[in-house]
Amino acid sequence: MNDVAEFVALSASDVAEALCKKDNILILFHHNPDGDASGSAFALKSFLDSVGKRAVCLCPDEMPERLLFISDGLQEKVTAEALPEDFVPELILSVDTASPSQLGTLYESYRGKIDAMIDHHGKGTPYADNYIVPTASSCGEVLYGVIRDMAQRLGVDIPLRTKSLIYTAISSDTGCFRYSNVAPSTHNVAAELIESGVDSADINHKLFGMKSLKQMQVEHAGFERMNMHLGGKLAIITFPYDLKEQYGAENEHLETLVDVARCIRGVEVAAVIKQPEAENRFRVSMRSSCDLDVSEICALYGGGGHVRAAGCTIVADSILSAEMTVVLAIEQRMLEEE
Amino acid sequence: MNDVAEFVALSASDVAEALCKKDNILILFHHNPDGDASGSAFALKSFLDSVGKRAVCLCPDEMPERLLFISDGLQEKVTAEALPEDFVPELILSVDTASPSQLGTLYESYRGKIDAMIDHHGKGTPYADNYIVPTASSCGEVLYGVIRDMAQRLGVDIPLRTKSLIYTAISSDTGCFRYSNVAPSTHNVAAELIESGVDSADINHKLFGMKSLKQMQVEHAGFERMNMHLGGKLAIITFPYDLKEQYGAENEHLETLVDVARCIRGVEVAAVIKQPEAENRFRVSMRSSCDLDVSEICALYGGGGHVRAAGCTIVADSILSAEMTVVLAIEQRMLEEE
Repeated sequence: MNDVAEFVALSASDVAEALCKKDNILILFHHNPDGDASGSAFALKSFLDSVGKRAVCLCPDEMPERLLFISDGLQEKVTAEALPEDFVPELILSVDTASPSQLGTLYESYRGKIDAMIDHHGKGTPYADNYIVPTASSCGEVLYGVIRDMAQRLGVDIPLRTKSLIYTAISSDTGCFRYSNVAPSTHNVAAELIESGVDSADINHKLFGMKSLKQMQVEHAGFERMNMHLGGKLAIITFPYDLKEQYGAENEHLETLVDVARCIRGVEVAAVIKQPEAENRFRVSMRSSCDLDVSEICALYGGGGHVRAAGCTIVADSILSAEMTVVLAIEQRMLEEE
Repeated sequence: MNDVAEFVALSASDVAEALCKKDNILILFHHNPDGDASGSAFALKSFLDSVGKRAVCLCPDEMPERLLFISDGLQEKVTAEALPEDFVPELILSVDTASPSQLGTLYESYRGKIDAMIDHHGKGTPYADNYIVPTASSCGEVLYGVIRDMAQRLGVDIPLRTKSLIYTAISSDTGCFRYSNVAPSTHNVAAELIESGVDSADINHKLFGMKSLKQMQVEHAGFERMNMHLGGKLAIITFPYDLKEQYGAENEHLETLVDVARCIRGVEVAAVIKQPEAENRFRVSMRSSCDLDVSEICALYGGGGHVRAAGCTIVADSILSAEMTVVLAIEQRMLEEE
């Protein structure tokens, strides 16, 4: 029996129609929220608010500091305690969330009660009727179609805040129109949003133009610890727990370390080995800029991901031992490919 | 007498018509070439080549290593010695070059012989008849109109290489659609270029996804030397000549230092003080993320620029002394503004 087949593929129009009929809407978005997930959730909330409905956004994790401008003025907290006691959802949606595990404990709370998923991830485990457009750059781009449909049905304009959040979601998930998920339609939507007043430069400055001093310090410490292998084709950064403690860094401050290694000219595979807790479990992130499929390497250690971005967890006696494991695994595959 | 009034404002159609009539075209672009200047020059050359004309691109400086993918396969060198002895230009254009000084010694060679400037800079000192669109994001966007007009006149398609170089020019000058010079038309042109096959992700990776190891080393050395003032609102990096020597760095490797200081959350004014040669002349770059007009501060020392990006040269006994001068000047203006 195929669970997937139980769920109905919806259209933008189906979702818009359902939203128009209800007044209390719960919007779920994935853990470790990014600009697309939170931008989409709050774009929908801001639009629903503007037409006199009540909407609440929930996430298993709090908003990271760098993305607080997205929820600012709309909702203070996003974890379960944010749900007002008197709020009884009539319709429950999720945005940008491909699989149940991404909803953490929220999934158990709302299992079987979610009316629709709005998403752009082609891979995942659907858990509700869904409107998924895998060719779209971002959930924001998919959701914009739903919101435009609603606005037309209701005969209202889409508020600037909603449009700004749609732009935020799209820009965030495309790395500001940098990545290969950008299609002509992505640029056309951006043109339309800017035409109607969205301050794209301000949003992009908030998304991409600022880092915390702590994150800069972490990147700097990581760069100092970077080892190059295979004549500069492989760059590895290790970031042990004691260093994390020394900088008072949270896991979110370590997320850009892999970009430090990846962006060096000539580097084809970049890996970062982090030690999130004071225990011998090491979290490995790998990125490939060549044909090497890093998800295959990570699969050897029970991990996975995509061809060019994957991760796994390695148990080892020390971070040095974990590094040697990773170096040998990548070196072997890189030499095989040559 | 106003020199500017001597020159005629041309249209895209005027420039296209003139180009169609001639077979040997010289294209000049500004010193210290960026992706817009060189992308525009080589976009035009690649199109002219494709219709059987002969075009040569010239610049006062060689192409920087990171932009060699732009000229690759089209022309090996771009400085004056690149001009073939048998090449007699019938039409001379400049692209992305607002003032004579930006052409360095080339200006003396071609003074009075330049037939048209194609540009998007509103400020500058026109030195020829010109087609300037100050509302355009980039010279690439302006030039695209000229090339489309030519293609229509000649009944030909625009080659993919030309389109890719136009995209390169636009993406480069907008920081990949990040900055406030992006208009709806910029996104619409990008949509059209991607629709017709331009690999935007590959171009953006080359423009923004890679740094040389040397540049990374310089940035990290700069970060280590960064001083914060005014409770974190002012960040200053000094980069003395001996450090430049130590890393074997060229001036181009020092260009991103100001971004290191500017991107830190909370920093409103960033300044970098470089010592290009072993002498007491210090090159200062300032960036503002607030209302403070850094061009006014730089003007105090004979420099200038824009409200948010300006520069000047300070003569001082030491780099520390230059730093103190800069700190005091900025602090005073920031305190005045409060």
